[in-house]
Amino acid sequence: MSERVKVSEQEDAARAILSWLKQYHKALAKTAVAVKVGDALLDLTAPVPVGQEMDVISADEPLGLEILRHSTSHLLAQAVLHLFPEAKPTIGPAIENGFYYDFATSRPFTEEDLAAIEAEMQKLVKQNIPVEHEEISREECIVRYREMGNEFKTEVLEEIPQPQVTIYRQGDFFDLCRGPHVPSTGRLGAFKLLSVAGAYWRGDEKRPMLQRIYGTAFATKEELDHYLEMREEAKRRDHRRLGRELGLFLISPEVGAGLPLWMPKGAIVREALEAFLKTELRKRGYLPVYTPHIGKLNLYRTSGHYPYYKESQFPPIIMDEKGEEEEGYLLKPMNCPHHIQIYKAEMHSYRDLPLRLAEFGTVYRYEQSGELGGMTRVRGFTQDDAHLFLTPEQLDHEFKDTVDLILFVFRTLGLSDFKVRVSLRDPASDKYVGDPENWDKAQSAILKAVQDLGMDYTVAEGEAAFYGPKLDFLVRDSIGREWQLGTVQVDYNLPERFQLEYIGEDGQPHRPVMIHRAPFGSLERFFGLLIEHFAGAFPVWMAPVQAIVIPIAERHHDFAKVVMDTLKAQGMRVDADMRSESMRYKIREAQLQKIPYMLVVGDKEEESRTVGVRAQKGGDLGAMPLDEFVAKLKDEAAIPTAG
Amino acid sequence: MSERVKVSEQEDAARAILSWLKQYHKALAKTAVAVKVGDALLDLTAPVPVGQEMDVISADEPLGLEILRHSTSHLLAQAVLHLFPEAKPTIGPAIENGFYYDFATSRPFTEEDLAAIEAEMQKLVKQNIPVEHEEISREECIVRYREMGNEFKTEVLEEIPQPQVTIYRQGDFFDLCRGPHVPSTGRLGAFKLLSVAGAYWRGDEKRPMLQRIYGTAFATKEELDHYLEMREEAKRRDHRRLGRELGLFLISPEVGAGLPLWMPKGAIVREALEAFLKTELRKRGYLPVYTPHIGKLNLYRTSGHYPYYKESQFPPIIMDEKGEEEEGYLLKPMNCPHHIQIYKAEMHSYRDLPLRLAEFGTVYRYEQSGELGGMTRVRGFTQDDAHLFLTPEQLDHEFKDTVDLILFVFRTLGLSDFKVRVSLRDPASDKYVGDPENWDKAQSAILKAVQDLGMDYTVAEGEAAFYGPKLDFLVRDSIGREWQLGTVQVDYNLPERFQLEYIGEDGQPHRPVMIHRAPFGSLERFFGLLIEHFAGAFPVWMAPVQAIVIPIAERHHDFAKVVMDTLKAQGMRVDADMRSESMRYKIREAQLQKIPYMLVVGDKEEESRTVGVRAQKGGDLGAMPLDEFVAKLKDEAAIPTAG
Repeated sequence: MSERVKVSEQEDAARAILSWLKQYHKALAKTAVAVKVGDALLDLTAPVPVGQEMDVISADEPLGLEILRHSTSHLLAQAVLHLFPEAKPTIGPAIENGFYYDFATSRPFTEEDLAAIEAEMQKLVKQNIPVEHEEISREECIVRYREMGNEFKTEVLEEIPQPQVTIYRQGDFFDLCRGPHVPSTGRLGAFKLLSVAGAYWRGDEKRPMLQRIYGTAFATKEELDHYLEMREEAKRRDHRRLGRELGLFLISPEVGAGLPLWMPKGAIVREALEAFLKTELRKRGYLPVYTPHIGKLNLYRTSGHYPYYKESQFPPIIMDEKGEEEEGYLLKPMNCPHHIQIYKAEMHSYRDLPLRLAEFGTVYRYEQSGELGGMTRVRGFTQDDAHLFLTPEQLDHEFKDTVDLILFVFRTLGLSDFKVRVSLRDPASDKYVGDPENWDKAQSAILKAVQDLGMDYTVAEGEAAFYGPKLDFLVRDSIGREWQLGTVQVDYNLPERFQLEYIGEDGQPHRPVMIHRAPFGSLERFFGLLIEHFAGAFPVWMAPVQAIVIPIAERHHDFAKVVMDTLKAQGMRVDADMRSESMRYKIREAQLQKIPYMLVVGDKEEESRTVGVRAQKGGDLGAMPLDEFVAKLKDEAAIPTAG
Repeated sequence: MSERVKVSEQEDAARAILSWLKQYHKALAKTAVAVKVGDALLDLTAPVPVGQEMDVISADEPLGLEILRHSTSHLLAQAVLHLFPEAKPTIGPAIENGFYYDFATSRPFTEEDLAAIEAEMQKLVKQNIPVEHEEISREECIVRYREMGNEFKTEVLEEIPQPQVTIYRQGDFFDLCRGPHVPSTGRLGAFKLLSVAGAYWRGDEKRPMLQRIYGTAFATKEELDHYLEMREEAKRRDHRRLGRELGLFLISPEVGAGLPLWMPKGAIVREALEAFLKTELRKRGYLPVYTPHIGKLNLYRTSGHYPYYKESQFPPIIMDEKGEEEEGYLLKPMNCPHHIQIYKAEMHSYRDLPLRLAEFGTVYRYEQSGELGGMTRVRGFTQDDAHLFLTPEQLDHEFKDTVDLILFVFRTLGLSDFKVRVSLRDPASDKYVGDPENWDKAQSAILKAVQDLGMDYTVAEGEAAFYGPKLDFLVRDSIGREWQLGTVQVDYNLPERFQLEYIGEDGQPHRPVMIHRAPFGSLERFFGLLIEHFAGAFPVWMAPVQAIVIPIAERHHDFAKVVMDTLKAQGMRVDADMRSESMRYKIREAQLQKIPYMLVVGDKEEESRTVGVRAQKGGDLGAMPLDEFVAKLKDEAAIPTAG
């Protein structure tokens, strides 16, 4: 956090802030990158604001880090011009997790170029070159860039309405920039150039292709190293890479972007996840349903999904040419309208409620193709969906029970680090359906529940679903990244729109309340998270192959088969590697395939009816009687339950 | 079957066939309704074909029954005119299982009218009125009907090009008709009027609405009674009625015709069926996959589904307005193109084959709305689908294994009465894709397999799928009706179209063969059959509620809960009826809900920790220790396996 300090009334008005800080706030001076006086950001080279307070911004807070990274992008440009004098710098902002700078060059940069540029940057850091701020006229700046033949900068300048602009100069380099910047290049150093990619000038494919160098920077070497390590770890865990290597899922351009196909090994994990959740749902009184993947357009007019959310949906299936009475169908973007039809198919008494209808329902939404990536953003996904139909009196209890289910699910999967967010409507917006009074009721029900449960929560105004407020779970995975997963929504509006009823204790019809909820959210997204969370090494109960038998020599094949068949007869998922490869090779491959147990069998094992057990995590566990291992694996393979 | 007889050269050419038959073939004369000479059908009142052979058609063969029913429709018209002289007869053909006659009337017929008409028909039978055939000029016939004010008959007559027409006369009634007919009304009698409905003249909603009376007729009273009984039984078992009464499924006009929603109780049955099949598939080396419900149009161009089978598909989802590069998507009419993408995602060696990919895959096809009814014809249905990718050498063995699986499934569900049909292509048609040589290979593979397995089969030319020949299973249900269910198809063509490959033992790429197969065919259709086959009383392992506890008085509620919870803890699906209704009432209701076991608990049971067991089929089984019943139910509730 920035620290607030006050400059005495007697201070010399010509003195630079940095000099003042060094005298009065030595520690702060070391980490400072800029200061804030009122709303204005100032360089440390600026004169002290006499008699005023200022917030000293240090490199370890978000704003400070942004300035540090922006300064590092200038350093990058300076180094590039030293090595490639013909390159033309264009723009170079700080971005999330780093910075980039785009250059017009005569040829693409190579990996070797990046190393050389980085070395040059470090050299400039050692020289501790002062970074100076200067105001010049826009016209003069245009002339200077024109002399350098940089038509990109002149284009930017020509769009600036003000007659004066600021530039930052460090040694032989200057850049058109609003700042602020660190006072000298010696303040930088914990940086790393990461990659280079082509990028169109101003994102326009009709304009020239530039070379974009990406990098990152931190306040300290430790933070940089930690970030790079996490980045490597995230790459290693990338579910797209693991999905391919482990044969878990497939995105095929022939089928369509964002329409994943679950390959056998992924499908087995999904079956385990579904079985896990179904067992729990049955215990908690949920009832299964199955509903079609399309519905008449009018159904979605009633629900408010169409044409309101048209932009995020696949276009409707228009029936014109069939000459039928129906106008058209929509791929269902949500399961609720279908579940509501099931509720409506029968009369309900308050005695029958809550009615909890659950479905692994696949829905289709049209994400823009730029947003698609692996399993985390898709166009067809399966919600572990359920809709609860309640009397208003049951809302509190059922809402908490739903939260309890979600907590159980997360805990069982080792996702115990999470935050919750209450998403409310933006009262100023008109994108919501329904009566404001119902919105208030629903919003207070959620807020009351999270408060009663003593949960830490944040409130996000304007993030509600169009038919009601919601509670979202933001889960931190094993390497600290946050994923938005499960959701619980309270809804007074769809029951109104669909005219739902139940007969109350008074014999009169009443309107039920609905809860929409999905612990995983989307099976696809959740699977993506689990792949990365476990780095592909799923717990035994989920693992596509739970154990692999590795015979040492061909004469052990028969016993290997006995071991495999014994385990298979108990319902375990077991393979045997009978290829004529070395044991070492087979073990390495099983390790890469993240199979939880490798069972080595040779003479000794066959004789004593044991297996040599190696765990994917944990190494050699030694010999174990076959029966004992069967019991152990069976135990670990059981679908976990809430006891 | 008709019998062939020969009339002597010396016979009197003026003698009526019936008189001749009475002399030479007394038994035949009794059941005869007409004769066939060459291709011509003749009345029994026609003169004998001297010196020629004739086939005597009796009422107990299909053609004879049709004539009998057609004659009964004339009898119906005569009776109607006796009772409703203002009615105008229009047309009255024989149809499958009976006949109808359409009348223009001043008011709709009532149930009472039908009874009176039937009584009048029986009176006319007793009078044994001769039925006579007459040829008159078309013009004269028009004049007669015009005099009677029957514009329907004149309209028909005006479309007849021939100058001469035939009429059949019986007493005071005559009808324009080609015949043949029975020789006198005394030959009729085993008939029943079934229902009355409105029908537009010539099926055109712009023409007058007529009254259609449906009836049926048989050669004997016994056959009629049997048919009426089966009809009652079929009505009692009608899956649409039971589906509603038992809360199994829902067809909602808001969602769309032919798009069933599985309600909780139906969904539980489906879960049991899927679990049953999945267990078996796992044992047989099938691997699960999940694939999206849409695919790019081009995928179906490659497979040949589009635009070829456009007429039976939902129209494509056209992407124009999204301005994306994709042209459009199709709701998948089959799962094969998706499974093929999974095959193609990895390299395959002959050692990895067969690869058996299984999915409960929901597909969408556009049946005409006239063809939709309950679960048996729908527009969205879930295939218990699988695709096997094989080396050509594996085809024989895998095909038989697939048939074996289907036989196991049918046997387990008590559907042991079935026929198989081999559907081949029609060599004259161009609706098939692929190389004739491949068709020949696939067709002989199927024929060889059914012959090797010693199965009774019929051959249906022109009934193949567009990409390959198939074997269909026609299953007879518990009341003798035939359903087309499981199917196995051999396919050399899609592997060609999608350029599938595997590396053979020779290190060279080869083309695999595919088997498409689905034991249930469609889960929806199969469920419809099962509902009717079991009359809604599913075996314990499938039953939505397996047992219901019925406490005799309120003081037994606690023990009732103990019984319920004990069974639930073992994973059984159990309810308790705690309402303040009589035991008798609760038992009756549980019977209607087809719950396999009712567990009555009172003082005696509570004291001895027993339950009074009543079986839905089988009545009172007496008291049973609770533990013993738990074991019994658990045993019956287990998913059946092939041992």
